Amino acid sequence: MTVQPDWGCFATPHGNIHMPCFAPVGTQATVKTLSPDEVREVGAELVLANTYHLYLRPGADRVARLGGLHRFMGWDGPILTDSGGFQVFSLSDMRKVDADGVTFRSHLDGSLHRFTPELVMDIQAKLGADIIMALDECPEPLDRAYNEEALARTHAWAARCAENQRRPQEQALFGIVQGGIFPDLRLESAAFLTALDLPGYAIGGLAVGETKEQMYATLDVVTPALPADRPRYLMGVGAPEDIVEAVARGLDLFDSVMPTRIARHGAIFTRHGRVNLRNARFADEPGPLEEGCDCYACTHFSTAYVHHLIRASEIFGLRLTTLHNLRFLQTLMRDIRNHIASGTFHAFKASFLRRYLCSKKTHSEATHP
Amino acid sequence: MTVQPDWGCFATPHGNIHMPCFAPVGTQATVKTLSPDEVREVGAELVLANTYHLYLRPGADRVARLGGLHRFMGWDGPILTDSGGFQVFSLSDMRKVDADGVTFRSHLDGSLHRFTPELVMDIQAKLGADIIMALDECPEPLDRAYNEEALARTHAWAARCAENQRRPQEQALFGIVQGGIFPDLRLESAAFLTALDLPGYAIGGLAVGETKEQMYATLDVVTPALPADRPRYLMGVGAPEDIVEAVARGLDLFDSVMPTRIARHGAIFTRHGRVNLRNARFADEPGPLEEGCDCYACTHFSTAYVHHLIRASEIFGLRLTTLHNLRFLQTLMRDIRNHIASGTFHAFKASFLRRYLCSKKTHSEATHP
Repeated sequence: MTVQPDWGCFATPHGNIHMPCFAPVGTQATVKTLSPDEVREVGAELVLANTYHLYLRPGADRVARLGGLHRFMGWDGPILTDSGGFQVFSLSDMRKVDADGVTFRSHLDGSLHRFTPELVMDIQAKLGADIIMALDECPEPLDRAYNEEALARTHAWAARCAENQRRPQEQALFGIVQGGIFPDLRLESAAFLTALDLPGYAIGGLAVGETKEQMYATLDVVTPALPADRPRYLMGVGAPEDIVEAVARGLDLFDSVMPTRIARHGAIFTRHGRVNLRNARFADEPGPLEEGCDCYACTHFSTAYVHHLIRASEIFGLRLTTLHNLRFLQTLMRDIRNHIASGTFHAFKASFLRRYLCSKKTHSEATHP
Repeated sequence: MTVQPDWGCFATPHGNIHMPCFAPVGTQATVKTLSPDEVREVGAELVLANTYHLYLRPGADRVARLGGLHRFMGWDGPILTDSGGFQVFSLSDMRKVDADGVTFRSHLDGSLHRFTPELVMDIQAKLGADIIMALDECPEPLDRAYNEEALARTHAWAARCAENQRRPQEQALFGIVQGGIFPDLRLESAAFLTALDLPGYAIGGLAVGETKEQMYATLDVVTPALPADRPRYLMGVGAPEDIVEAVARGLDLFDSVMPTRIARHGAIFTRHGRVNLRNARFADEPGPLEEGCDCYACTHFSTAYVHHLIRASEIFGLRLTTLHNLRFLQTLMRDIRNHIASGTFHAFKASFLRRYLCSKKTHSEATHP
């Protein structure tokens, strides 16, 4: 379990992860709409799955009996499971937090459950992911008093997770830096977690209500305070412009449901910005979603066909937009890695953002410039 | 455009169709949940698409401008389009039939439309399928008076379709025998249509309300009255037991949304009958959906995983059950063809039905006998 400094390669028992990396999210042990083969084909190396969801259904013991998460979902590459903290604080119907853990009601059936650092380590050991996360509390990023209070718990829980890890030889435990948009809290959190000497560190609690400027400013403060020779993971961020900005600040790893979620609403990434395929202007477009894209959707079907499928609520349309968006991000990550290697990242960043954020162009101009 | 008698091969501009054949339904220019590659991989040779749906959305002129239906949906094998008659009489909000055609309101937006035999030939010429169907009226199969009255229109419309075919060199026009469950009407219809000397004949208006015994009895009467050297197509039938019974009576071609529709509700075909995967007894089943099945679902995933996906409303689960059901039917058709060729069809039929209709077994017994 080693990472090579400076945009290297993070080794796991299920293969290497080339950094910087974007991980598609397979919340319920499936990247929505796709087969594991398709996830591999778009170029993804790492898949994220959600401890909260899998604990509730089908259950960690069941997944373990069936051979672990890799075998269960048919994905033989690296997997990262989150700690469930974020979902408990955003999805569950009721939650009551105390020093020892958090009690919550399932969003599925209202049943009562309790997560402690030890149980979350136990669940993630049973699931068997390659990278596991410490239990954290996820407060509103702008609420100072709540962030101060929650941070003490998040740190105590991280220490207990590190002490109670079940399979340290096979699973890399990452800590999660919290502290909202407050520089002093973020630095305190980075210092505390760094002292635990973990194989990687995540920045949590961003992209959930603050402005982009506040997010970038927080990254400016906290990223340099985390070891550069370990992966630095920005949780829940998948917008192309945010990934590019975060890589410029030293971040290595990203995940988000956004690329797959917007795909299921008919929205796709292009080099010239986001495009909504439901728009009537695509009804007669014979060209691909994006000229030059090598994804399955772009190499096999017209934009008019995908538009038709989306308008007709056909599942195959959601597959095609999902494949395109994930391929777009994997191509972006590959370009980022290449430009870092050749020392041209900052020029690439400027040119990418100029094109991507110029949203006034029509799709026709965008795909056939 | 020739058919070899006695379970031969029907040639089309997009390839041969080996009879007897089951055609998956791609109502809106997509077999629900699947890619064209997957439809090919399950072994399907012919895909059905719906004239009514494609006429309303995206429109026949648009499909023609985009290169025709094969190119639009990325399927380079044979396609059959129905006439739209069945949908007008089952889906549209209002319909008014007269000697010349039928006026109806779209189920999508209530807009007013009119199908005549000439227009339906025109639409199907624009879509460009390899097999096209004459416009017919689809009455309640048990209503004698309505069937008598409707049959006169169906025959007049079939004659007008034959006279107004736009691309007879590329498209095979099939007539549709109607007449409900009434032997004299069915024989009259078979005689009228046979006199038109068409390349194939369909039996419509069955599997829509009559008992299975009434359906089989109707097939006993009408099938021998249709030319044995042309495909005889039983429309809308996809239940395995019905296909086997119908092949025994001389039918060659079948289509139905049932296999794909029940798949999306979590139900699968097995050699031991239909099984509902939502049942809790599958939650820990490590084996495949059906032992010995070579479909993608059975060769890659446990029954427990598919059960989990279906319970969690995950689209990938619907893909897996759809792949399994279509593969089950294609395997059945291949077995039927082989047993016909080796003269053992009747023994195969008896053994298949004994096993398939014995529904008292548990899944565990069924898949691991």
